[in-house]
Amino acid sequence: MSTLLPQEPLQQDPRVKAVFDDIRATRETDFVNNIWRYLAFDADLLERTWAEVKSVMATPSELDPLTKEMLYLAVSIANSCNYCIHSHSAACKARGMTTTQHAEVLKIVSLAAKTNHLCNAMAVPVDSVFMLDENESATS
Amino acid sequence: MSTLLPQEPLQQDPRVKAVFDDIRATRETDFVNNIWRYLAFDADLLERTWAEVKSVMATPSELDPLTKEMLYLAVSIANSCNYCIHSHSAACKARGMTTTQHAEVLKIVSLAAKTNHLCNAMAVPVDSVFMLDENESATS
Amino acid sequence: MSTLLPQEPLQQDPRVKAVFDDIRATRETDFVNNIWRYLAFDADLLERTWAEVKSVMATPSELDPLTKEMLYLAVSIANSCNYCIHSHSAACKARGMTTTQHAEVLKIVSLAAKTNHLCNAMAVPVDSVFMLDENESATS
Amino acid sequence: MSTLLPQEPLQQDPRVKAVFDDIRATRETDFVNNIWRYLAFDADLLERTWAEVKSVMATPSELDPLTKEMLYLAVSIANSCNYCIHSHSAACKARGMTTTQHAEVLKIVSLAAKTNHLCNAMAVPVDSVFMLDENESATS
Amino acid sequence: MSTLLPQEPLQQDPRVKAVFDDIRATRETDFVNNIWRYLAFDADLLERTWAEVKSVMATPSELDPLTKEMLYLAVSIANSCNYCIHSHSAACKARGMTTTQHAEVLKIVSLAAKTNHLCNAMAVPVDSVFMLDENESATS
Amino acid sequence: MSTLLPQEPLQQDPRVKAVFDDIRATRETDFVNNIWRYLAFDADLLERTWAEVKSVMATPSELDPLTKEMLYLAVSIANSCNYCIHSHSAACKARGMTTTQHAEVLKIVSLAAKTNHLCNAMAVPVDSVFMLDENESATS
Repeated sequence: MSTLLPQEPLQQDPRVKAVFDDIRATRETDFVNNIWRYLAFDADLLERTWAEVKSVMATPSELDPLTKEMLYLAVSIANSCNYCIHSHSAACKARGMTTTQHAEVLKIVSLAAKTNHLCNAMAVPVDSVFMLDENESATS
Repeated sequence: MSTLLPQEPLQQDPRVKAVFDDIRATRETDFVNNIWRYLAFDADLLERTWAEVKSVMATPSELDPLTKEMLYLAVSIANSCNYCIHSHSAACKARGMTTTQHAEVLKIVSLAAKTNHLCNAMAVPVDSVFMLDENESATS
Repeated sequence: MSTLLPQEPLQQDPRVKAVFDDIRATRETDFVNNIWRYLAFDADLLERTWAEVKSVMATPSELDPLTKEMLYLAVSIANSCNYCIHSHSAACKARGMTTTQHAEVLKIVSLAAKTNHLCNAMAVPVDSVFMLDENESATS
Repeated sequence: MSTLLPQEPLQQDPRVKAVFDDIRATRETDFVNNIWRYLAFDADLLERTWAEVKSVMATPSELDPLTKEMLYLAVSIANSCNYCIHSHSAACKARGMTTTQHAEVLKIVSLAAKTNHLCNAMAVPVDSVFMLDENESATS
Repeated sequence: MSTLLPQEPLQQDPRVKAVFDDIRATRETDFVNNIWRYLAFDADLLERTWAEVKSVMATPSELDPLTKEMLYLAVSIANSCNYCIHSHSAACKARGMTTTQHAEVLKIVSLAAKTNHLCNAMAVPVDSVFMLDENESATS
Repeated sequence: MSTLLPQEPLQQDPRVKAVFDDIRATRETDFVNNIWRYLAFDADLLERTWAEVKSVMATPSELDPLTKEMLYLAVSIANSCNYCIHSHSAACKARGMTTTQHAEVLKIVSLAAKTNHLCNAMAVPVDSVFMLDENESATS
């Protein structure tokens, strides 16, 4: 049902092969999920997207891996991306999200959606204390 | 610039007053931000919304308070709610979000938006390993 | 194709069973549609969601039941929720929506989407007569 | 704050003038709100948009005028169009929407947003009874 | 999986038949894709939608046909419309979009989504040089 | 009205200064618009975002610069990003977009939004001829 053909004989393009090898090495699994097979129709797009995902999501940082995956999932739900909802729900579980935590993420996401619509509907003015640039001047 | 009038003489409706008192007690501050002043045009809507926010966001749970606020912020960004973006950016900072963590949230949110659009554009089929109900049968 | 398993042997959790019994009694049918089977993975989430749907949608109020379902459908279309589009299209028909009215809802929803994009594209400033809080002061 | 200039000396283009005259005659008021002043930068776009708004919103039909305005408002909230939220909140009030009904619209819109996010998050499969084309064959 | 039945025995309604004949003549093909079969449940909705699509997309204008289809595709991706993503990806290819151009469209769409989320997240104020109505006065 | 402080004394961080210098050199102007001043709170986020914008938008490619800016604008309208709508409307004009072309972009964007909502509302099934992976097998 797609608009592009997944690229299977990946060995043919060395740039594509290099990305797939790095995905497998980084994730320590032979499995490469579909987004990468579809992005492989353009080596440049594939390389850039993987480089960003690897840097942001698969590199140790101040936020722990589960928190990062839950944030990714939350945005994907709000943006109605069925593929990312599935892949990042799975990633959350792989990083230890419990069923109770899954329910909690859904409660927060759906409550945020609710108040997002309420605030937009009422056009609530932003409180001045929330506006940084009216309260301070940049000093860095 | 709003579509409703904020309710100021809040003492007049005891249900509204009770919610405002509970907001102040729960948050340990006299400050009540604008969303509650605008929702106060309908006591029932105000009561229900606060009850849900209090239960989901202001009650100890498996997720820590900062993670919850960051999830709320992520959804608000994706849903383009300017008011909630401001109030929950402030809430994240009040709960200890560092500037580096703020940058990290923005990196994750914007990367998710990017791949959300890519997956929808290519109509990437969901990998079967991500589809729970095709892999297991319910046993609870 | 889901990210959670529907809960079938519902008798096991009395809180889940109570909600299902109430859905059946309120709607006067044995049929319980899928959203409730999936929400049942977390009794608290199920209870809260049903309580809100029952209160807002299944309790007599100033707006008639068909108007309420049509509003629900309109939002679900704008938010690209395929499940809710289906369930609330069916609910509208069950409450008497004619084919002509269905066409009318689609005309309004798609026209609104069109002018929503036009106004955002041009950044049309809001007319001062539409801004309540600039025209009056709160007196309630 | 706009991306286009509103067209003031409207008399200069007879097509623009004709649309403004028709807006005033149809609405029985001299006031022409900003969307039309901004669309007037292109007579064709102005003519087509007004013709559609007039036909769908200002012509008697099976749905009553207030229901139509509430549907328009609901979509505008979901699509985050601040201009349309303001103009159609005002239109709803002009057609008799009470404060209680306004609160009810907000409750429905925000509840729909909530379950829209929940269903997308869980990828709830559509119940077969909601799928028309699997249940019947076209006979018209 | 639809909420409406496609209309097959199209000969029955002369208005529907006339639209289908015009689609076939305009596009020089016997194939009529599904959106028109589903819109045919209401002759008025069908007529208006086709008239607009024909005027905007199938009539020579300042923008070339491929650019127009790519713009249509870009919006459909951002709005998560799976049907339009498929039909307009096909239309782009039929108008000569190369694989490299397809990749380029995806890069632009996903980069725009990324900075859209970043700007909303930071609430970046619009530079005054971008605000037309503050820089000039209307003179047309 | 922002959630972050713009960074003014940019000389202090050599990475930030290098990006600003490159923006000025690439665009051949001293003017640096606000998005870069706000992103400068995190040098890494600033560097990556500019690198991507420069590569995708400011490097010669198969699509001409105006087409690329119009695609960027179209997505920004659909995603309700007021900042990007302003900056890319200005960029389109700087690259030669005429008023008639501006009107054409708005007609296409708003028509796409309209049929996006119609197709989602009716859940129109994708025609099999539009599904690449059902028609061919990958051969690259």
